[in-house]
Amino acid sequence: MIFNQKWQGYRIQNGVYSDPFPASVPGNIQKDWARSHNFGDVHYAENCEKFRELEDDFWEYRAHLDYTANEGERVFFVSQGIDYKYDISLNEKVIHSDEGMFHKIELDLTDALLESGNELSVKIYPHPKRAGSPVGSILEADHSCKPPVCYGWDWNPRLLISGLWQEAYIETRTSAYIRNCEVFYTLSEDFSVADVTVSIDCDLSCSFELFDADGNIVYSGSDTSFTVNNPILWWCNGQGDPYLYTYKASNSEYSVFGTVGFRSVRIVRNFNAIDPSLFPKSRYDAPFTLMLNGRRVFMKGSNWVNPDIFWGDINRDTYDSLLTLVRDANMNILRMWGGAAVAKRDFYELCDKYGIMVWQEFMLACNRYPDDADYLTVLEKEARAIITDHRRYPCLILWCGGNELFNGWSGMDDQSLPLRLLDKLCYELDYGKPFIKTSPLVGMGHGCYIFADSRGDRAGIMGGDVYKSFQQANCVAYTEFGVPSISSEEVLRSIIPEDELFPIGETKSYLLHHAVKAWRPQSHACVPIIESYFGPSESLGQLIDRSNFLQCEGYKACYEEMRKQEPHCSAALNWCFNEPWKTAANLSVIMYPANPKPAYYAIKEALRPVLFSARIPKFDWKAGEVFKAEIWFLNDSPEAASGEVSVSLRVGEHTFSLLDWKNVSTPAGENLQGAQVCCVLPDAIGETEMTLTLTSPDGKGSEYRLVYYEKPKVTKRRVLNF
Amino acid sequence: MIFNQKWQGYRIQNGVYSDPFPASVPGNIQKDWARSHNFGDVHYAENCEKFRELEDDFWEYRAHLDYTANEGERVFFVSQGIDYKYDISLNEKVIHSDEGMFHKIELDLTDALLESGNELSVKIYPHPKRAGSPVGSILEADHSCKPPVCYGWDWNPRLLISGLWQEAYIETRTSAYIRNCEVFYTLSEDFSVADVTVSIDCDLSCSFELFDADGNIVYSGSDTSFTVNNPILWWCNGQGDPYLYTYKASNSEYSVFGTVGFRSVRIVRNFNAIDPSLFPKSRYDAPFTLMLNGRRVFMKGSNWVNPDIFWGDINRDTYDSLLTLVRDANMNILRMWGGAAVAKRDFYELCDKYGIMVWQEFMLACNRYPDDADYLTVLEKEARAIITDHRRYPCLILWCGGNELFNGWSGMDDQSLPLRLLDKLCYELDYGKPFIKTSPLVGMGHGCYIFADSRGDRAGIMGGDVYKSFQQANCVAYTEFGVPSISSEEVLRSIIPEDELFPIGETKSYLLHHAVKAWRPQSHACVPIIESYFGPSESLGQLIDRSNFLQCEGYKACYEEMRKQEPHCSAALNWCFNEPWKTAANLSVIMYPANPKPAYYAIKEALRPVLFSARIPKFDWKAGEVFKAEIWFLNDSPEAASGEVSVSLRVGEHTFSLLDWKNVSTPAGENLQGAQVCCVLPDAIGETEMTLTLTSPDGKGSEYRLVYYEKPKVTKRRVLNF
Repeated sequence: MIFNQKWQGYRIQNGVYSDPFPASVPGNIQKDWARSHNFGDVHYAENCEKFRELEDDFWEYRAHLDYTANEGERVFFVSQGIDYKYDISLNEKVIHSDEGMFHKIELDLTDALLESGNELSVKIYPHPKRAGSPVGSILEADHSCKPPVCYGWDWNPRLLISGLWQEAYIETRTSAYIRNCEVFYTLSEDFSVADVTVSIDCDLSCSFELFDADGNIVYSGSDTSFTVNNPILWWCNGQGDPYLYTYKASNSEYSVFGTVGFRSVRIVRNFNAIDPSLFPKSRYDAPFTLMLNGRRVFMKGSNWVNPDIFWGDINRDTYDSLLTLVRDANMNILRMWGGAAVAKRDFYELCDKYGIMVWQEFMLACNRYPDDADYLTVLEKEARAIITDHRRYPCLILWCGGNELFNGWSGMDDQSLPLRLLDKLCYELDYGKPFIKTSPLVGMGHGCYIFADSRGDRAGIMGGDVYKSFQQANCVAYTEFGVPSISSEEVLRSIIPEDELFPIGETKSYLLHHAVKAWRPQSHACVPIIESYFGPSESLGQLIDRSNFLQCEGYKACYEEMRKQEPHCSAALNWCFNEPWKTAANLSVIMYPANPKPAYYAIKEALRPVLFSARIPKFDWKAGEVFKAEIWFLNDSPEAASGEVSVSLRVGEHTFSLLDWKNVSTPAGENLQGAQVCCVLPDAIGETEMTLTLTSPDGKGSEYRLVYYEKPKVTKRRVLNF
Repeated sequence: MIFNQKWQGYRIQNGVYSDPFPASVPGNIQKDWARSHNFGDVHYAENCEKFRELEDDFWEYRAHLDYTANEGERVFFVSQGIDYKYDISLNEKVIHSDEGMFHKIELDLTDALLESGNELSVKIYPHPKRAGSPVGSILEADHSCKPPVCYGWDWNPRLLISGLWQEAYIETRTSAYIRNCEVFYTLSEDFSVADVTVSIDCDLSCSFELFDADGNIVYSGSDTSFTVNNPILWWCNGQGDPYLYTYKASNSEYSVFGTVGFRSVRIVRNFNAIDPSLFPKSRYDAPFTLMLNGRRVFMKGSNWVNPDIFWGDINRDTYDSLLTLVRDANMNILRMWGGAAVAKRDFYELCDKYGIMVWQEFMLACNRYPDDADYLTVLEKEARAIITDHRRYPCLILWCGGNELFNGWSGMDDQSLPLRLLDKLCYELDYGKPFIKTSPLVGMGHGCYIFADSRGDRAGIMGGDVYKSFQQANCVAYTEFGVPSISSEEVLRSIIPEDELFPIGETKSYLLHHAVKAWRPQSHACVPIIESYFGPSESLGQLIDRSNFLQCEGYKACYEEMRKQEPHCSAALNWCFNEPWKTAANLSVIMYPANPKPAYYAIKEALRPVLFSARIPKFDWKAGEVFKAEIWFLNDSPEAASGEVSVSLRVGEHTFSLLDWKNVSTPAGENLQGAQVCCVLPDAIGETEMTLTLTSPDGKGSEYRLVYYEKPKVTKRRVLNF
């Protein structure tokens, strides 16, 4: 039986305890402090800065234990994880010290309990900061397993949190308690048979029942292994049903329930993986093609970040509102980016349910984690827990060491022991599931994170706008790429003081909310890029509209181009899906907490299983130029597709009928390249935009908005150099 | 006590045993058969083909056991390894079945022995051949741990061998027997302290003594751990002494002896490792810079292959004659190429002694080894034995999964379970020693294997001669590259029938001895390339001289260029050092068994720790051209170097004094780039060669022979297209 406790919090400065304040569990103690000390809305203006003064203090949770135990029952303190370094004391005596927020704690208190009046306390140490590291940088986190994102990222304020971020409670247990039940299986090569092994951790013998989704019994008994014939497979979104079986393991006193999804997953070499032709020869590109249940599946999705700066507040509803949006956007995968690492259990349960595959990274990102025995000990403890707790979810299809570790700004490499350790642990504990040491590997691509080069930014980082840039690229997978936009006026007004609002400048609030100097000098608002296409904006609303116009068309161009590069290309995941607080500008397509930007709907269109799509060489066009576009029929669905399309271009009064393509059909999972259309662009006085429309019945059409310049104004208004 | 046995061999065809024939142990039973059936000299003409008919037979060794055992002693059958799959029977009863040639066998026979008249037999299965693989190809070996080289390589005839290739004997042991003694240590960061742990596998307690190289006792006692202060470090050739301590572990009855070399080894990221500048960004190059005892050491060496086609015949003398040549060539490393895998113990002991570092690969090469449970079981058994038997040698500085596994012709990749398994086992059993999954990794280079492109070969595989090709390349390590030559006339006359000798053509003997169609159509004799520079040869002797001229100058150009690319480049290892039999032409610098080619001495010069060197843009020059060369001062020694040089170019009667460079000095391990010299080449009638001479006292000078064409003949004689 579970007994939730009433917790009080204390701040400890130089050994001196504050007055107690109410502490939420699960929660973050810094937020509890802020609430009782009137920090105000953390999203507004500079309020998040107030948390800086709390970084180096100790904190303590205390509860006068309130529970009843029957004769023979043991009394446990249980938590799914405590952030980050802590001592647990019972009646002022330390009974457990630990480090690492992702492994479970189960402490048998029974023998140390008094008859009554027991007090349990959890003392939280200051956030890890490596001695000698630059103050306020993520390097402070480079010798610990604390997710570095809290130390500040280009979309996450510096806001260090800790405490009882997961459920924590007293539980009474008899000797019949079922500590764990896990179901393993191997599928035959033709997927017609699942050999199932059940592992139940209980001192008593248990019975086991497996049910199909309709509640029919598939197996019932006490064997630890049995066979399921013709299992219904779990498929990701767009490829079939995310079919789940349920199970019940029970004895006379306890029952545990869970789900099983039968599926196989492999990562294989990409079609036409680049094998150098000239000597001296190096290796070919890293493999990144996903085979789900023997079927090649194009990974289309996004990068997930922590959905709240206060991780303790995140709950099933937080996840559900976002994950239904993922599913509805025709996405099939989320990359759980290393800097924020592992979500709560509800996340994976919902991904199982919605058919959203999860690429799970460990908590390493953009740092050089050391070959250090103390660090490796904590990492191994955390990684063992993460792997054994999550390997059961069919949604989890790939382990990865962490983010961008093989790039100059991190400086780790193939020899780094933390990554060799993680590979080894995954091999041992989750044999056969793919593992990569980091992203990107050779041949995979990260970036770029702007719509186009501009004078206001470093030259040549892309070599054009996102249309041109990705048409030139030839990656086996695009696992991060981003086009920013400015948040809605409503959001801006709730976080930026009125007098700073417009024009967007390097004010404290805009800086803190990542409108400027977040990545490049102008990121993420990128006003100079917007102005390079449209000239100065007259109002905040106009600027926001233009920014979202670029994000919509930019993301559409990226995703559709990457799909056209199938099967050499195997993945398209933008940076990023969601955000942890109200940003002023971001690459995300969802505003905090779960409000879609216009780009969300554009991506949803671009990711339809079947659509007609245009490969347009660039975004901006001018009168007199020869407009060209390739017309494609995209199909990543598991069925053959057919359709027809009419292509027309409209500039003001001028409409050009460019193509009628009839009786178009393509097999399951295959794209078809059609004709290249072209026309000379007219001089349409006063027009600034043109539209390419692919009209098709059954929702397979597409529309592309492009920038158009009438003749005389081009050289004056444009500063881009294509 | 050890009792060698007298063995008889049997060939078993369709279950029928042949008459017995004498079998050598260690040895290979096919060679025993050949000897008693007059196959003739295996090197001559087509004799090696006679072994093809033996491939699919069973073989058996039998010995009537001859030993004496005292009261209480146990009787063991011991072998360091049996090739490849086998049953061991005592008195016709199978007592052990096994697979894999690299793990040790120790069978306690005692309880099954008769009073007298015991017969031990070892039945050898046919060589593994994967069902369905193309007959006669290395694909036959792609599901086994049999080294694939025996299935035929471009310098090794197809000649499948098996049997008791290592010592095999009866040993009587008391309960005091010391099964193993191994010494582990960790060095402090400043190398001033070694924390030593001794592991002795014995049922009785043992004492342990450690001696320095002069025989002075460093430690004596029975502790399992102790400290050595200021240990004298083991260094590789050219960087210091390969200092070895010796130890003795003993009890009342037994003593075992061994050596310990204190050294630390790491592989770190290369200087200026290439981090892509344009988005989308991939990863940077694989790390390959060696840090030995904290000092960056440029790896200069070669690729080692099995030194005999009959592995059973290889002994300490075989190794010694070759390894002294390695040492004397100023080399510090050998890559133990995966196709031939692991040598006998003597090899590593000698490498320890001579300071030759060993890059040890497992037995995977150029094949796609499967994610198959049976294969992985054998691989794990073999790999565990290889790692635990060899981790003790200080010479062994790098583990590697195998050869060219991440290239199109192999088709394995980062996800392949055999390579993940090997990484995991190395991490567990030899923690901290570098491991790479294969060579080449990204940024490392293999090839090319010819002196230059020519009309007779596929166009564009290099883009020039080896001078130009490697000056254009920018690899972090060149771990295979080769320039072939034709073997000496003496060798050719001993292997090629008189009537086939000249000109070299596609005769059976030349084909079998790899003069033609070994790699490219013209490899390895490469007569069209030789003719492209010199025109037709008038005699075999002249052709051989010209071939060796190209190999000498080619290898010198390669090695010296790679040294100039330090520190971005960290390694230069040519393909290959030695050869397993008498080839007609090969990329090796040593002819079988241990006879240096002229190129050996050229490489020895190129690898002097300190020398003046010229970077010459190409090999062939013509009258009227502007000759250019950069003059460098190379120093990879651990001391600062100084010197002076005069540079002159001679073409027939013409001598140009190009440079006097005085007071040249450079710190330890650093190269210095000097001036570029140049002059217009004269028209020297009748000349075909010119020489660039770098004259320097103290043996630091160099000389480069180049091809020269007087004016009118150029266009007619040259077919190369630079």
